[in-house]
Amino acid sequence: MTLRVLGVDPGLTRCGIGVVDVEPDRRVSLVYYGVVRSEPSSPIEQRLLTIGLGLEAAIDEHKPHAMAVERVFAQHNLRTVMGTAQVSGLALHAAASRTIPVGLRTPSEVKAAITGYGAADKKQVQTMVARVLGLAELPQPADAADALALAICHAWRGAAPAAASGGDPSAMTPAQRAWLAAERASKR
Amino acid sequence: MTLRVLGVDPGLTRCGIGVVDVEPDRRVSLVYYGVVRSEPSSPIEQRLLTIGLGLEAAIDEHKPHAMAVERVFAQHNLRTVMGTAQVSGLALHAAASRTIPVGLRTPSEVKAAITGYGAADKKQVQTMVARVLGLAELPQPADAADALALAICHAWRGAAPAAASGGDPSAMTPAQRAWLAAERASKR
Repeated sequence: MTLRVLGVDPGLTRCGIGVVDVEPDRRVSLVYYGVVRSEPSSPIEQRLLTIGLGLEAAIDEHKPHAMAVERVFAQHNLRTVMGTAQVSGLALHAAASRTIPVGLRTPSEVKAAITGYGAADKKQVQTMVARVLGLAELPQPADAADALALAICHAWRGAAPAAASGGDPSAMTPAQRAWLAAERASKR
Repeated sequence: MTLRVLGVDPGLTRCGIGVVDVEPDRRVSLVYYGVVRSEPSSPIEQRLLTIGLGLEAAIDEHKPHAMAVERVFAQHNLRTVMGTAQVSGLALHAAASRTIPVGLRTPSEVKAAITGYGAADKKQVQTMVARVLGLAELPQPADAADALALAICHAWRGAAPAAASGGDPSAMTPAQRAWLAAERASKR
């Protein structure tokens, strides 16, 4: 049973989206990657509308079983953090409104899962994402590669909501139960 | 011609909503105020879904001509700022997706417009909002009073998008043109 995971690297100027299919034996294959852009000179509400429409279109086209969104932390540029937080809110809202289980992953957690090193740079992440997915070229731009890394990390870690339910199948969504069953079957 | 303005004081635990009708002579009357709450122990995506649904229901019920959202700044508690920014993103997105013109207003700008003093405390804002709207009691909780103050401030200042268009009617939405015409008529 194949599970599809959509990762979102939230951003107001470039929002990365990556979709992968994951097999019970942890093999992953590429479904889609790209970025939604908005014009920095546009009013904030128009930018959020543009990013939101792009996110929703990707979700509705690829119909993921689970989603992962990068957790936003304080950065040097407060203006950027606000926009990033606003876009992460849209992504989480889009998941919940479609009853798609969604989890937050930190950048260092994702880097560690993909490269084995929590402080890996963008090039290392792109290189490992390309290797894992068997791509001939590095996924560009870095925001899209980050979204793919997020999706892969989330898949390999079994999707946070299932873990949060303590492995109790009765507390899970159908997608989470399917995931758990697939994981267990792959370990036999 | 009466113009209706909906103000949003964004918050994840309590999101204030206030709706007022404004006459060309600047008199304002109360339409609605309240808060949408979400349970702090719920997952973030469920909280955003709950707040988003409440916001959208208020917008669709009261059909404002314009909206105002409090501008989010850095605060002491970074966790609170992130949730506030995410909710402000939902509010801006909800306005843009309905082509309702929306503006951001700073807390000090709102306090100055309502009380004449940019550092007014919550009680002073509630008192002046009650006086301006002719309410027998102070609007509660403070988040709802803040949302009313935001709506009144936005109305009195002529709605930011119209101002941003430099007063050129051809660059305005129908609501903005109506507003401008109403404002000019009131000054004759």
